[in-house]
Amino acid sequence: MQIRTDLAIEMKEVFEESRNSTSINGVEVENKEFEDCKITIVEIKTDEGSQIMNKDKGKYITIESKLMRYDDEESREKMIEYVKNELINIFGTDKHKTTLIIGLGNWNITPDALGPKTVSKTLITRHIFKSYHKDYDDDFSEVAGLSPGVMGITGIETGEIVKSLVDIIHPDRVIAIDALASRRMDRVNSTIQISTSGITPGKGVGNARMTLNKENLGVDVIAIGVPTVVDAATLTTDVLEIAIDNLIQQSNENDSFYNLLKNIKDDEKYQLIKESLDPYDKNLIVTPKDIDEEIENAAIIISEALNRTLHPGRI
Amino acid sequence: MQIRTDLAIEMKEVFEESRNSTSINGVEVENKEFEDCKITIVEIKTDEGSQIMNKDKGKYITIESKLMRYDDEESREKMIEYVKNELINIFGTDKHKTTLIIGLGNWNITPDALGPKTVSKTLITRHIFKSYHKDYDDDFSEVAGLSPGVMGITGIETGEIVKSLVDIIHPDRVIAIDALASRRMDRVNSTIQISTSGITPGKGVGNARMTLNKENLGVDVIAIGVPTVVDAATLTTDVLEIAIDNLIQQSNENDSFYNLLKNIKDDEKYQLIKESLDPYDKNLIVTPKDIDEEIENAAIIISEALNRTLHPGRI
Amino acid sequence: MQIRTDLAIEMKEVFEESRNSTSINGVEVENKEFEDCKITIVEIKTDEGSQIMNKDKGKYITIESKLMRYDDEESREKMIEYVKNELINIFGTDKHKTTLIIGLGNWNITPDALGPKTVSKTLITRHIFKSYHKDYDDDFSEVAGLSPGVMGITGIETGEIVKSLVDIIHPDRVIAIDALASRRMDRVNSTIQISTSGITPGKGVGNARMTLNKENLGVDVIAIGVPTVVDAATLTTDVLEIAIDNLIQQSNENDSFYNLLKNIKDDEKYQLIKESLDPYDKNLIVTPKDIDEEIENAAIIISEALNRTLHPGRI
Amino acid sequence: MQIRTDLAIEMKEVFEESRNSTSINGVEVENKEFEDCKITIVEIKTDEGSQIMNKDKGKYITIESKLMRYDDEESREKMIEYVKNELINIFGTDKHKTTLIIGLGNWNITPDALGPKTVSKTLITRHIFKSYHKDYDDDFSEVAGLSPGVMGITGIETGEIVKSLVDIIHPDRVIAIDALASRRMDRVNSTIQISTSGITPGKGVGNARMTLNKENLGVDVIAIGVPTVVDAATLTTDVLEIAIDNLIQQSNENDSFYNLLKNIKDDEKYQLIKESLDPYDKNLIVTPKDIDEEIENAAIIISEALNRTLHPGRI
Repeated sequence: MQIRTDLAIEMKEVFEESRNSTSINGVEVENKEFEDCKITIVEIKTDEGSQIMNKDKGKYITIESKLMRYDDEESREKMIEYVKNELINIFGTDKHKTTLIIGLGNWNITPDALGPKTVSKTLITRHIFKSYHKDYDDDFSEVAGLSPGVMGITGIETGEIVKSLVDIIHPDRVIAIDALASRRMDRVNSTIQISTSGITPGKGVGNARMTLNKENLGVDVIAIGVPTVVDAATLTTDVLEIAIDNLIQQSNENDSFYNLLKNIKDDEKYQLIKESLDPYDKNLIVTPKDIDEEIENAAIIISEALNRTLHPGRI
Repeated sequence: MQIRTDLAIEMKEVFEESRNSTSINGVEVENKEFEDCKITIVEIKTDEGSQIMNKDKGKYITIESKLMRYDDEESREKMIEYVKNELINIFGTDKHKTTLIIGLGNWNITPDALGPKTVSKTLITRHIFKSYHKDYDDDFSEVAGLSPGVMGITGIETGEIVKSLVDIIHPDRVIAIDALASRRMDRVNSTIQISTSGITPGKGVGNARMTLNKENLGVDVIAIGVPTVVDAATLTTDVLEIAIDNLIQQSNENDSFYNLLKNIKDDEKYQLIKESLDPYDKNLIVTPKDIDEEIENAAIIISEALNRTLHPGRI
Repeated sequence: MQIRTDLAIEMKEVFEESRNSTSINGVEVENKEFEDCKITIVEIKTDEGSQIMNKDKGKYITIESKLMRYDDEESREKMIEYVKNELINIFGTDKHKTTLIIGLGNWNITPDALGPKTVSKTLITRHIFKSYHKDYDDDFSEVAGLSPGVMGITGIETGEIVKSLVDIIHPDRVIAIDALASRRMDRVNSTIQISTSGITPGKGVGNARMTLNKENLGVDVIAIGVPTVVDAATLTTDVLEIAIDNLIQQSNENDSFYNLLKNIKDDEKYQLIKESLDPYDKNLIVTPKDIDEEIENAAIIISEALNRTLHPGRI
Repeated sequence: MQIRTDLAIEMKEVFEESRNSTSINGVEVENKEFEDCKITIVEIKTDEGSQIMNKDKGKYITIESKLMRYDDEESREKMIEYVKNELINIFGTDKHKTTLIIGLGNWNITPDALGPKTVSKTLITRHIFKSYHKDYDDDFSEVAGLSPGVMGITGIETGEIVKSLVDIIHPDRVIAIDALASRRMDRVNSTIQISTSGITPGKGVGNARMTLNKENLGVDVIAIGVPTVVDAATLTTDVLEIAIDNLIQQSNENDSFYNLLKNIKDDEKYQLIKESLDPYDKNLIVTPKDIDEEIENAAIIISEALNRTLHPGRI
């Protein structure tokens, strides 16, 4: 499967399109519909489901809403509350727990800067707890944070850096924020995925590294991501598919060509396009022009939802 | 013609592809080939040529080189000299002339920030000439500069702002720097176009405004641009075209479908793709991931070539 | 008088200290005290008052409040309303009036970037009025904006650029935003001065240029400024003064030295200090360490107060 | 001793001023004078010397040159070579050694951003050595890097983060880059201190933390710093001292006041000034206005000197 996406709901779509089926063994789906927001919870429960979805077992909550595209206070406030509610479902409200927040991605590349931007806006409190020798506070919980930068910046595997931090500060959980790749432009900067199954830094850019998950870090890992790009090959594949469907509808079933078209495999189409985009394919991305503002808005929403969840006493 | 490009050599390519012809009435072409650089000079001499090319009369010098993609000193130095030589061909070496440099585009949007970035790196000297009451210097010429920002930032037509500056400082020429759109990814950030026919701010983003040219400003206008994006609809059109060509080659001339494919018009394909990209089409751009660094490099090359041309005495 | 300050209330203080008097001919003062804010309105009514104060005739409204130093929503909201109320007192609520907002100062130097930052956050509407051919709207007024950059960046007098813009767009008033110098650290980033007498770009940095005022531009000019620095010579002069006062109190009236100290003139002290700071004095500034955040906060407060005053229908 | 300085040569000056002596037990000094640069090597050899100097034992190399203030290529090139030569004296040229470069300080505060800026310009190679399973290269050495951010950003002691990185990647040495405080404005941004005795993050801002040194990290630690600020209390103390010296010279030895002045202790003066600056003293800094450009220039010089020392084969 060559469609590049980090979203569980898109893996499910891809599977369903190829099988003309809407249920996957070992995968449970729950939908919540609101006036201005749609929340889909995909839970991968079995190894079979994991293999089909090409995703680790765990919960994947997708919050989709056009509210993320508007920059007024009211829309933002609504989004923050939607995200906060889902975070509380996962985190609970135990203020004794300590958290390490990791901003993944490269702050020098706008669409990859979501993680560092979000961490910089999240209230860090661990040093204050340490200064006052407190273990517990009614209004705030203990939070540390780091945006290590990608491997090209540090020369060190991000997973190794995070592991070593976990070993010295012993948090109860790690929250990792990252920019994701989507298959569809209409999900870019209007979707937030929260998952309990960990995250692999650099997976989106084709350099898979040590996964940040409970197995590797020894503590719960919650990943929060927003798709900020579609890669150019994925976009053109999807556009080509629509175009070919249109051609098929215009053609005659008795033509040999009709069958030729019918038999073009997804993989072949993708290969064809990749070749025509070569030698840039790996680094060619499609983004909205105002990506800077959209990333900023997404970082505000996620950091504020985290602040309200982790620090309930903060005004 | 719906292919979006600001490059004269691409308009020529488009024309040639559609006509299977390599000469256009009223358009003269000169090529210079170097080991690591290709320079094409397209001169549109007649109204007919102008109409066919959908470009104003004048010279369009295109410098294409992979050297722009490398960030070592040596490659950069070579590019600066190629650009400087073409600028001297246009400007001459008369140090009595005064210049107003305008950085077009929006500094908040990375791929649109080339103009402001370049102006900020160009040596501005007019205030020093004024302070010392000099009209002329052996080593430097008189240069003023402004990056007004796009109309969404100022509320004022950029052309009006430039016109009013020309009226108060009376330069001998205006140099306008802008980011351009190309049709092909392989020209992005590896091509510099210098033209003597003026430039229309915002044309690239579909909001054509008052053209900066001799007719409107009363002085020579030299435009320098680098293609920094391909719009997503243009990219997918080109990819689709290659894909359809491949399908035609695989099909049988006797099929009715073969003819269907043959008859698909470029415009229809483009329309089809635009619709499938909708509602994002206007703002969807394709860029390399490291666009920030590539823009910075292009700004260094152009500003340094300008500095060497305008201020020959500068070390 | 060598104390460097752009604040009318500080000129008044300096005068009063040197004369031991609290009233100045031709200068009227009104005070408003709030729980968390102090507003002083100094009106210079006569040429004599103008000469004594070394300031042009007009109103100088100074809003002083520690609220500016806090970055919570509530403090900010209060400050915005204080500023808005004073702006409405000056501007009235006539939505037919068109405004040109000018951001003075150099965006590359943090404490000088207040003007450009504020303009970038103010809602610009002129192009929308032009597109829809509207002269008037119930909710918004027509606003254009530009941050030209200082003379070292453009090579052109800022006053000339503003004059030429006024001539092409004919606004009813110009609002100029600038960073100011104060005499006292405790006013830095906690004071906003609004004045009706115009402003001279670069005055703060010792390069006085063409003043932006009604005489030169032909329209009302309202200047809004925040002191963001104290120059090092001014700070040390003031500290030295306090130290000498303390020494005098510890000394004996019969000592000849007591009289020596008593007779030291402000100018001598300042000269002494200037020499000891030489050769850096012109460029040495004292700022709080977190100047970046404080400037950002001041820009939010002023831009939002302007938005609410000029665009009453904006949510 | 309340004079705030991170420079060993200034601690020596302070000592000498107070003792009227130019030699300190256990401290050796070597001077190298060049046409445009002065290099002082202070070596603290004994515990007594360490106590007097209030600095750990080790070498402190101070490179002072006005060349750092100029932004032309030639001056920069000279500075890079001066720094490189001192680095080679310390590092040697063994390309088998692996290095971890740490950028200390807060990237959000301009004068504190030297460390992160320098690391971002230094060539990081460790991941490439790992990818190609190389231990050794003729042209490059293995370098990793991180700018963790200050404790207010991470909630974690910087020393703990660095220790944990050292434990996972086992470098042969740590190079820590930081912004320093000086006592004299004329050293700001024109001095580079290289020391072999480690560095304490946050010491400059009054929050001393775990020292990065061989004792704590288990590997050699080389600190490279540039004074980027003078704190306001230190500056005014020094100015006050000069002023009082001048007053003493003007006074009569028989006055009781003469003796009063003579007896004022440094501490009292400093206390006096601190009180008059209160409540801002801790955060009030004095900087040149163009601090942004000067920091950028210093980061280029240090990173390029490091690149040439660590990666001799780099063009």
